[in-house]
Amino acid sequence: MNAPVDLRETMDAVRWRALAEELLDELRARSSDGRGVTRECYAEGEEAALDLFRSTAERYGLKCSSDRAANLIVTLPDDDLTQPALILGSHADSVPQGGNFDGGAGVIAGLLCLIRLIGERHRTAQPVRLLVLRGEESAYYGRANIGSRALFGLIKASDLEAKRQGNGRTLREALAGAGADMAGIEAQAALLAPNFASSYLELHIEQGPVMVARELPVAIVTGIRGNLRHRRIVCRGEAGHSGTVPRWLRRDAVFAVADLLMRLDEHWNRLLERGLDLVVTTGVFNTDIERQAISRIPGEVYFSFEVRSQSFETLEGFYELFRSECRAVSDIRHVRFEFDERVYTEPARMDEAIIARLRRQAEQLGYAIELLASGAGHDAAVFANAGIPSGMIFVRNANGSHNPDEAMTVDDFMRGVELMYAFASAAP
Amino acid sequence: MNAPVDLRETMDAVRWRALAEELLDELRARSSDGRGVTRECYAEGEEAALDLFRSTAERYGLKCSSDRAANLIVTLPDDDLTQPALILGSHADSVPQGGNFDGGAGVIAGLLCLIRLIGERHRTAQPVRLLVLRGEESAYYGRANIGSRALFGLIKASDLEAKRQGNGRTLREALAGAGADMAGIEAQAALLAPNFASSYLELHIEQGPVMVARELPVAIVTGIRGNLRHRRIVCRGEAGHSGTVPRWLRRDAVFAVADLLMRLDEHWNRLLERGLDLVVTTGVFNTDIERQAISRIPGEVYFSFEVRSQSFETLEGFYELFRSECRAVSDIRHVRFEFDERVYTEPARMDEAIIARLRRQAEQLGYAIELLASGAGHDAAVFANAGIPSGMIFVRNANGSHNPDEAMTVDDFMRGVELMYAFASAAP
Repeated sequence: MNAPVDLRETMDAVRWRALAEELLDELRARSSDGRGVTRECYAEGEEAALDLFRSTAERYGLKCSSDRAANLIVTLPDDDLTQPALILGSHADSVPQGGNFDGGAGVIAGLLCLIRLIGERHRTAQPVRLLVLRGEESAYYGRANIGSRALFGLIKASDLEAKRQGNGRTLREALAGAGADMAGIEAQAALLAPNFASSYLELHIEQGPVMVARELPVAIVTGIRGNLRHRRIVCRGEAGHSGTVPRWLRRDAVFAVADLLMRLDEHWNRLLERGLDLVVTTGVFNTDIERQAISRIPGEVYFSFEVRSQSFETLEGFYELFRSECRAVSDIRHVRFEFDERVYTEPARMDEAIIARLRRQAEQLGYAIELLASGAGHDAAVFANAGIPSGMIFVRNANGSHNPDEAMTVDDFMRGVELMYAFASAAP
Repeated sequence: MNAPVDLRETMDAVRWRALAEELLDELRARSSDGRGVTRECYAEGEEAALDLFRSTAERYGLKCSSDRAANLIVTLPDDDLTQPALILGSHADSVPQGGNFDGGAGVIAGLLCLIRLIGERHRTAQPVRLLVLRGEESAYYGRANIGSRALFGLIKASDLEAKRQGNGRTLREALAGAGADMAGIEAQAALLAPNFASSYLELHIEQGPVMVARELPVAIVTGIRGNLRHRRIVCRGEAGHSGTVPRWLRRDAVFAVADLLMRLDEHWNRLLERGLDLVVTTGVFNTDIERQAISRIPGEVYFSFEVRSQSFETLEGFYELFRSECRAVSDIRHVRFEFDERVYTEPARMDEAIIARLRRQAEQLGYAIELLASGAGHDAAVFANAGIPSGMIFVRNANGSHNPDEAMTVDDFMRGVELMYAFASAAP
């Protein structure tokens, strides 16, 4: 597949779909680890993916370059990077033993759009570029969105010292090895020209079960949830013999935290009825492994708390409710709560005008479409929070992500790509 | 303290109290392990305690013998064991690093009563005997009330094969070594003459916090709680990304079990208002240690369930509520519960007539007294369930039991002993 292609012959719908299938398969083959795919950022797997994207782009007459954070830029031949552009973005990396479509589908979608634009000799009012971002997953260095955050001066000195599990390579070494502008990154400078991007659009598989449940092949993302977290809260009551301490003298930590969670569950339910975007999770809940016993009133519980929402106000509001219910439970059940550091990740809103345009174009394409919040993080959040109007297209996918069982059909994918192409080709 | 004692000189109240203090101190000294006391059943610590009880009894002119389960019987000199008697009972053994009073206080109380009966030349209508039971604690062989259960043919073949943690000695070897009638025990025969005991009375420290909280030095026990347990129940939901799965698609095992516990808490509260005796405990509650994460919707929870009550009907009734709430939560929260074997320990009621007599006598002594359920198990439950009218006197004690911090004052102890003596000396 290395010879240049005569575009006039190839770019009907059938050939477009065949190319999509070929690229998805080839991407999987190049980064397979036997069980799933492994595209480690700034390392072999991600490089193999970039090589495929680069060689495919060049074969179809597109131009490739790198930005100062070592991400790959793909442009139409007449784009000299001086005009503000619509950026089609996604990421090349994956988690270890991950799925092929998380990131990869978005890159291939952008590539297919540029190939069709060049094939149809379609001139858009402003340039359309593909940005293939690196290091989006936090799996290797414990830091997400490295490639996009570097572009906006958001990599901190401490981030650069983060060590890869296993071989101890630092993120600084990884970025330098990939050819990134380390002086610029360390200075936390903006590495993109101010007018590089007028807007940003990312296609991604859905990583949750909503679209399968609602039978939606394609959805438009309204925002990307931020979160407020405590990794470890301790609820301290008092241990005692389960037979000898009556209810009125108990300080049972398990009942106290159960009470707290049911109070939060009620608030959650009520806020959803008011139309707010909110999910609440206690993924960790443990009595003391050393001392727990069937006949011991549990004197302590260790648990995590996480609330996610697209809205900063909802996050803060729910957090206030949470702390206030902790106080109420403390009073009623005679326990106390000890909190570790509160960790905040900012939510991002997708641009209203972009959402409206995507919606119109989806309707024109005849899609049954709904708006959906993204629960997982995406590079689109970094662009949106940097002030660049951004949008996202979700494609239906079964079995979640970050595992080899991701399941997106090519039919659904092509519906998403059609919508992206409609948006990009009509870019104002 | 080995010379025979002239009882006429010694048995005023001052000397009685001094003897109590001396025996409590001597018992502690003989079984001290440095931190607490260790009176391992059918081994050194318990033997040391029995030696003290035997030598003290003989010094005061009492007679000692063994029953067929190797327990110690102490009688007045004219008791030929042919008449039904009031049995004052308690146990000689302790848990490892336990407290001095758990068991020991009851034996010394019985000894003090017999010594005073002989000192005052008081003739009771029927004999009063002290039974010093062995192996009441389950700490060494995982079986409780060995000495009393053996007397009623309640030791099963599998019990005899139970191995002591650490040295592997079987309970059979332990009992045989102590001189028990192994043929009788193996045949599950009744080892007491049918008319040995007309009634049974045990003094014990309270092992819970109620009497300290209510400022009661002495209390009368209404019954000994039985329990229904599941050691390990699994609640299975579905794991998922905490950001991408909305509330309506979640099958969150932590929220499900929290919901279940709050439903039970409400039932519990309501049943207490109706005057039922009930405690409910989930001492173990864990998400999957290997897979739990802050951002993972918990797909499974492992938890224990225990309900205790003096009433069989309350236990069964609450268990039905529990299973029915499990079904309700399964339906609403789309989880399922997997139950291990249900384990049942029978409750025991203390005899109404004995309770009434103890109450009258406590009032005559001027005690502020209340009735209390025993949450922990006692040999009195074995006697009661064998059809022997039984009673218990609780003495106030801080800091629970099974630890070296047990705290019973001698003042409170003497109040309990006075009540026991009033009961024993007036035995019909």
